[in-house]
Parts: sequence; C-alpha cells; structure tokens
Amino acid sequence: MNYKQLSQEIKKKKSFLCVGLDSDINKIPGHLLEKEDPMFEFNKAIIDATAEFTVAYKPNIAFYESEGAVGWISLEKTVKYLKNNYPDIFIIADAKRGDIGNTSNLYARAFFSKMDVDAVTVAPYMGEDSVSPFLTYDDKWVVLLALTSNKGADDFQYHTDKNETLFESVLKKSQAWAGKEKMMYVVGATRAEMLADIRKIVPEHFLLVPGVGAQGGSLEAVAKYGMNENCGLLVNSSRGIIFASNGTDFAIRAGEEAKAMQMQMQVLLENVSF
Amino acid sequence: MNYKQLSQEIKKKKSFLCVGLDSDINKIPGHLLEKEDPMFEFNKAIIDATAEFTVAYKPNIAFYESEGAVGWISLEKTVKYLKNNYPDIFIIADAKRGDIGNTSNLYARAFFSKMDVDAVTVAPYMGEDSVSPFLTYDDKWVVLLALTSNKGADDFQYHTDKNETLFESVLKKSQAWAGKEKMMYVVGATRAEMLADIRKIVPEHFLLVPGVGAQGGSLEAVAKYGMNENCGLLVNSSRGIIFASNGTDFAIRAGEEAKAMQMQMQVLLENVSF
Repeated sequence: MNYKQLSQEIKKKKSFLCVGLDSDINKIPGHLLEKEDPMFEFNKAIIDATAEFTVAYKPNIAFYESEGAVGWISLEKTVKYLKNNYPDIFIIADAKRGDIGNTSNLYARAFFSKMDVDAVTVAPYMGEDSVSPFLTYDDKWVVLLALTSNKGADDFQYHTDKNETLFESVLKKSQAWAGKEKMMYVVGATRAEMLADIRKIVPEHFLLVPGVGAQGGSLEAVAKYGMNENCGLLVNSSRGIIFASNGTDFAIRAGEEAKAMQMQMQVLLENVSF
Repeated sequence: MNYKQLSQEIKKKKSFLCVGLDSDINKIPGHLLEKEDPMFEFNKAIIDATAEFTVAYKPNIAFYESEGAVGWISLEKTVKYLKNNYPDIFIIADAKRGDIGNTSNLYARAFFSKMDVDAVTVAPYMGEDSVSPFLTYDDKWVVLLALTSNKGADDFQYHTDKNETLFESVLKKSQAWAGKEKMMYVVGATRAEMLADIRKIVPEHFLLVPGVGAQGGSLEAVAKYGMNENCGLLVNSSRGIIFASNGTDFAIRAGEEAKAMQMQMQVLLENVSF
C-alpha cells in the first residue's frame, strides 16, 4: 500500500486508528483456550469486530514469538486472514528489528516476502545499512523508532550532540534513506506536545503514535500537534480495545471501543482538507 | 551458565570462539536440501564438527525467522540438540530485540523460558525498561549492542553529548542495570583499537566481538586490546566457519576452520592468568 492509498483509506473510513494485536495468550478470554489455535481465533474475532473502524492492524511480534513456532503459525494465519478478507487494511509487524545489512535483508524477507505485511518497525541504533534492506520492496514501509513512549526513552533518545537530540538526528538522517512514501516514524503520545517540533523536521511523513489509552496519551493533543494536511497519523490502541472485556462479549466490546475512537477521530479529521 | 562457569569453559577448551549459526537456507550445501529439515541437519553437522573447539554458538534469529514457522522449528530443534548433547556450551540468541517493558517481557519469555538459551542480544535505543525484563532470569544474560561492526555504526553510535559518545553512554548507564554476571556488550572487531578505551569503562565484562574473519577484523588485535584477566572475550565467526565449503565436506571444513581459530586463541590465552 502506498502513501496515497493509505491517506484515501483514512478519508474513506474517517479513522486513523491502528489496532494493536498484542494478543497475549495469558490474557485472552478463557473460553477460547479450548480452540485449536486460540490466538488466531481471538484475532479473527477482534478483526471482524473492529475492521470497519480501523485503517491498520499492528501485531506485536513478541506476543507470538513467545509461543515459539506455534505462535508464528498463529501470526501467519492472522496476516493471511487480513489479506484475504480486508485487503485494504494496512498491516504493521511491530518487530523492532535491525541488524547488519545481510541480516536485515533476511528480516525484510521474513516480513515482506514470506509474510507480506505492509510495514515493519525498525530500531535505528545500527544506522543506515541496518534499515535500508527494508526499503528495497515496492510499497512496503519502514516505521523507524524516533521518540518512544516508555520511561526508558529518556536514557538515550535525548542524548544531545550540538543541540540535536538523538531522536532528532534519527529523524533528520533517515530522510536521506527514504521519503514519506516508504518511511514512517514512531513518536510516543505521552509527549504529544513535542509533536509540534517533530512536525517541523518531518512535516509530511506519517507518524505512528502508540501510547494513547492504556499508556495515558490524549488523542486530542496528538491530533492538535501532530496532524498534517493529509492527516499523517496512525494512532495505535492495543489493550484498551482488544482486552476491553475478557468475557464472551470480548469482540463486541472491542468493536464498541474501536467505534468510540473512530468517532472521536472523525471529529478531529474535519480539520483536514485531503 | 554464570560468569565463572563460562570462564572455566574457556580455560578448559583453550578457546573463546563463538560460532555464528547464520544458517541461510540459500547457502547451505545442496545435498542437504533433500532432507526433511535442511537447516537443522546443517546445524547438527556443524555443531558436531566444531563443538570441541567452541565455547559458544550464536544462532542469528533472522535466518530462521525468514523461513517463518518452519524456520522457528529448525531453531528450536537446534537449541534442544545443543542443550541435550553439549550442555556446557553457551548459547546466544542473536535477536537484537528491545521494546517497551511488557513486550520485552514476552521476548525474554520466548528466548529464556520457551527456548532456554543463555543470552539474547538486545538493542539499547529504548533504554532501561526495554532491557531489564531480560535481566530477571537466573544465570541468563543480556548482550547489549554498544559499538557494532557495520558501516551504519557511524550514523548514531558516535553521537556525542558532553564528550561522551552514545555507545559510551550505553556502556556507562547500563552498568547500573546489571553487573558482569548478567551483561555482556557487542563491540565490533573492525574497530579493535577502540577496545582499549572500552576496557576502561567495562574492565570486567565479557565482550562479544563479531566481525573477525569475513568482516575483516584481526583476532590478534582484538586480544591485544580487549582481553582481560579472565579472558573476557567471546569472538564470533560465522560465514568463515560454517560456509568454508558448500560441498559434502562442509562439516569437515568447518571443523578445520574452527580448530585453526582455536589454535590461535590457545596462543593468545597463554597471557591470561585465570
């Protein structure tokens, strides 16, 4: 999926919601554990209940990997289910990968060729040649970590060289590696006011914003400081939606939560010209 | 495995060699492709031929992940084979993971509980809470990226705040998270002369040094600048050993290459008191 198509989906659905499929086997409703593949059954029900309000899904790879090969099968089935039933939805593998060139090549193959998702989150620590292998696929994206929403973000991301923080260096340097058609950035919502400064560096790129909801960020603040003329935002919510209930009504409740966010987003999108 | 046990293995085997199991399905000898699980068959033969000269193996997770669930099964079988047949060998999952706390928890579970390796490589970009979940397991280690051996290392790792580069900050700050018993650092051999300065910051920790051989670093220089009184080094070689031949003699040739490195290491270890 390319920049224009993604923007059009946002316009059509009046939503810039990304639902995080952090489908922890220890948290999914008990009645699903009798099924042959509980994680997949959970995801399928969540997807069917929320797809109408959502432009993207973001499976967090750790939750699958922690179950070993069995978890990878659940993940592969989930991606296939999305591609077959909701081909216009953007899929982000939240993997935070990044290694030397020949290794990143293999990670890119895993996610873009073997699994066929649209985007992968990548950590920038190892620099350009750790990121560029992900940029060689048509209409596939890197979502590069810039300023994350966790406490540890303070440890290194504000390391300041000649008045430029590390995350600002990441935003600036990486623009030479790819433009807004292939690169997005992770910017945490817990620091929404910083989005205004970040927008000065990357006015046109999509920003993937985690940390709204469970992690405490405000959707209004994210839109106020981060939205651009094409929207340019994907706001992720995971636990607040997928674990809204752990009873048999989990999918209905997830749909309600997703709808509530979509309705807020619809109002916020009225300021966007498209 | 703890610090003392690992040091004793080095002393016993007169080797600080780590063999990188970068078992690319596209590079393994053709005659193995007829087998039911070619990657595992390849690894098994390589391990049996090299274990005598080796204190550690480092499967590079990308090479398994790129084959999806099938690759994960090969990886799980490889780790199990090592644990059952060579229980005194240290296993490093070269995964370069790192995410917010609850997600890193799951990655730690994947590698330490589900798979039972000894160590995982972790990227420091997201700071303490992305690393600490890996530090909660007894006798399990984090191998934190500090100064990597690739070209892109220059992009951010030398970002300098008050005369302190980012990789120096990583080395300094992370010592508050864990001591030499649970933390190692990746330091690339292509910059061996920098090991002397790095040793001033982390005199006692183990350093995992990639980049000897195929990537051009010199073993002598690494030992000269990086060795401490307990050796304190694990030097990795991947392609130079495992792909020494792609004929039916691949395992024999791998054993010869590993033995050659072990013999060099034996000489270099004569300077170590233990």
